[in-house]
Amino acid sequence: MAAGIKASGQLDFGLIYCEEPAVGAGVFTTNLVKAAPVLLGRQRVPSGHVRGVVANSGCANACTGEAGLRDAERLLAETGRLLKVAPEDLLPASTGVIGERLPLEKMLAALPELVSGLSPEKAPSFARAIMTTDTFPKVAERVLSLPQGEVRLLGIAKGAGMIAPNMATMLGFILTDARLEESELEGILRSAVETSFNRITVDGDTSTNDTVYALASGASGCALGGTGREDFVRLFNEVCQELAYLIVKDGEGATKTVRIRVEGAANEEEALLMARTVANSLLVKTAFFGEDPNWGRVLAALGRSGASFDPYEVDLFIDDVAIVRNGLSLGKEAEERAHRVMQKSEFTLTILLKQGKAVAEMLTCDLSYDYVKINAEYRT
Amino acid sequence: MAAGIKASGQLDFGLIYCEEPAVGAGVFTTNLVKAAPVLLGRQRVPSGHVRGVVANSGCANACTGEAGLRDAERLLAETGRLLKVAPEDLLPASTGVIGERLPLEKMLAALPELVSGLSPEKAPSFARAIMTTDTFPKVAERVLSLPQGEVRLLGIAKGAGMIAPNMATMLGFILTDARLEESELEGILRSAVETSFNRITVDGDTSTNDTVYALASGASGCALGGTGREDFVRLFNEVCQELAYLIVKDGEGATKTVRIRVEGAANEEEALLMARTVANSLLVKTAFFGEDPNWGRVLAALGRSGASFDPYEVDLFIDDVAIVRNGLSLGKEAEERAHRVMQKSEFTLTILLKQGKAVAEMLTCDLSYDYVKINAEYRT
Repeated sequence: MAAGIKASGQLDFGLIYCEEPAVGAGVFTTNLVKAAPVLLGRQRVPSGHVRGVVANSGCANACTGEAGLRDAERLLAETGRLLKVAPEDLLPASTGVIGERLPLEKMLAALPELVSGLSPEKAPSFARAIMTTDTFPKVAERVLSLPQGEVRLLGIAKGAGMIAPNMATMLGFILTDARLEESELEGILRSAVETSFNRITVDGDTSTNDTVYALASGASGCALGGTGREDFVRLFNEVCQELAYLIVKDGEGATKTVRIRVEGAANEEEALLMARTVANSLLVKTAFFGEDPNWGRVLAALGRSGASFDPYEVDLFIDDVAIVRNGLSLGKEAEERAHRVMQKSEFTLTILLKQGKAVAEMLTCDLSYDYVKINAEYRT
Repeated sequence: MAAGIKASGQLDFGLIYCEEPAVGAGVFTTNLVKAAPVLLGRQRVPSGHVRGVVANSGCANACTGEAGLRDAERLLAETGRLLKVAPEDLLPASTGVIGERLPLEKMLAALPELVSGLSPEKAPSFARAIMTTDTFPKVAERVLSLPQGEVRLLGIAKGAGMIAPNMATMLGFILTDARLEESELEGILRSAVETSFNRITVDGDTSTNDTVYALASGASGCALGGTGREDFVRLFNEVCQELAYLIVKDGEGATKTVRIRVEGAANEEEALLMARTVANSLLVKTAFFGEDPNWGRVLAALGRSGASFDPYEVDLFIDDVAIVRNGLSLGKEAEERAHRVMQKSEFTLTILLKQGKAVAEMLTCDLSYDYVKINAEYRT
């Protein structure tokens, strides 16, 4: 619903309710500066009896001190009273402007309508209620058919920059009716986040509010064993990867989504370090915007990554077009072909190192005028 | 002179000549991908008998393999023959497009004119001959008066991004007629670079060609002892800092030069880490462009820097306007005053941590539409 937190009057307040206690897990920002909902939320999960999540956009409740913590607690306490559940079993999530207090009066006034309006059909509205500079809602669903029944997965996320303009930023919610232990869900979530939300970049900044919650209600009655568990993990990963992809696709000002794939690295750590450095390089990102197969910038970014490799063994490809072999240019004609591939809205830059067998991927976007425009606008 | 290396016909070829063997030192890019002139130059200094530097813009001679090394050696050999000095006593420096071979025929054809035209009055032309996307030449001079005579310092640099558009990038030349030992000059240069060229950022990228050479001819006849040496080091540092300042001022697309000053950090390493992270944050840099005292972005950047501090002890200032005290906003009126300060072309962001006594500074610039425009233009 719209509680008036956003001046625009758009949806800004949402509630996820678990009819029965759910198993809950969470992963949170690694930023030392943590928002009040992050400080509170990470005390409360993992848990075997989560009853819901209270989420808002328009205000991050970050850099708000003790007062901000009390605001979040007060909001959860009132929600618990209305839902008739223990406030400690509710989780908070906020996104929006940093440094401002929650408009608590407005939110408390809106709570009864939020609670009475709860409905499983409203997931799309929830996805809209957590948007800030997002241009579209982000939802991913999967169903797993098992001999013992069906298990459903619903993922909802928001985010359009690692930090949106003064917004604090990425939120994700993965809901399932599978029956899982706390530690099991925690493990699945951590591992899925590592290869999805932790492998994307828009501007290399890390928010004070990043949070992904996973809730497993057990309502399907299906426990997961053997191949069922494997399939579940695969679908869980797919949901996270689809949401992560949607966040990059909606990257602030982005016109292109680019997969950076490092192959043949000495080890996985270095592969990821190199993929991450290339994915975050302003010069590489502006070259993507300019549709310029500017391989010198890619080699320069690899060279400053800290990983060790032989520059004269590197091959580079834009999709399947080779532009560099053993560190040397394949010529203007190859670059012209690569330039044509880069006119597409999605392509892959493959970096083949020939140092070993490790592989890593990052998803990134280009850096356009609009990124600067969106982020340079004065807040008031 | 203009040797035709640049298609534009502008100055692109320069020579520094030492009439008597000079003491030479150098510092070079830390990028694993090193250009041919860097690979060659770092074998040749420190040295007690440098006779000159051959420099060009328009072509970085980077990512050119064995052939690129042979090109650079050939160029120095021919220059040595014309100057009647040993080729091993000449140093190379190149800047420009990565991945292309030097146009050696043009350069060899131009060499006799370059050598016969040598003159102490041509330092300004040399400064122009090494420019790429620079919009002005960068020169800094100092004179030190000692009881035993005068010592002169001349610094020349180029650079407009840590990497300019597909250019490989920063070059610096510090010339003096002081009489110094190799190891002494090397120490003075390394220490000066650490607090000047290593404390600036335009886009956080590191070039394949970054090089600073220092040459001390001893022609003044003045050796440096006691306070003379201290004064010399101070002036040497000033020359480097002035050149570094000029590079940021000429940052690609930059409209503002901003000093990031971290005070009260637990130690110098963390102070520098924090200053560097803030100075490189796209969100902070776009906020500078928007003249927005967006302190949430500064705190978020500090928080992801990896340094440890208490967010609720941080004070922030734009010049002398306080906008945050103990991690909390000082309100809209303070931000409005800070916004007015940010309309200037230069200001300081001071971050006061209250964790200890360490201080560090970085010089950075804002991120504007023009940065994207300059770097997104297709090369051909």
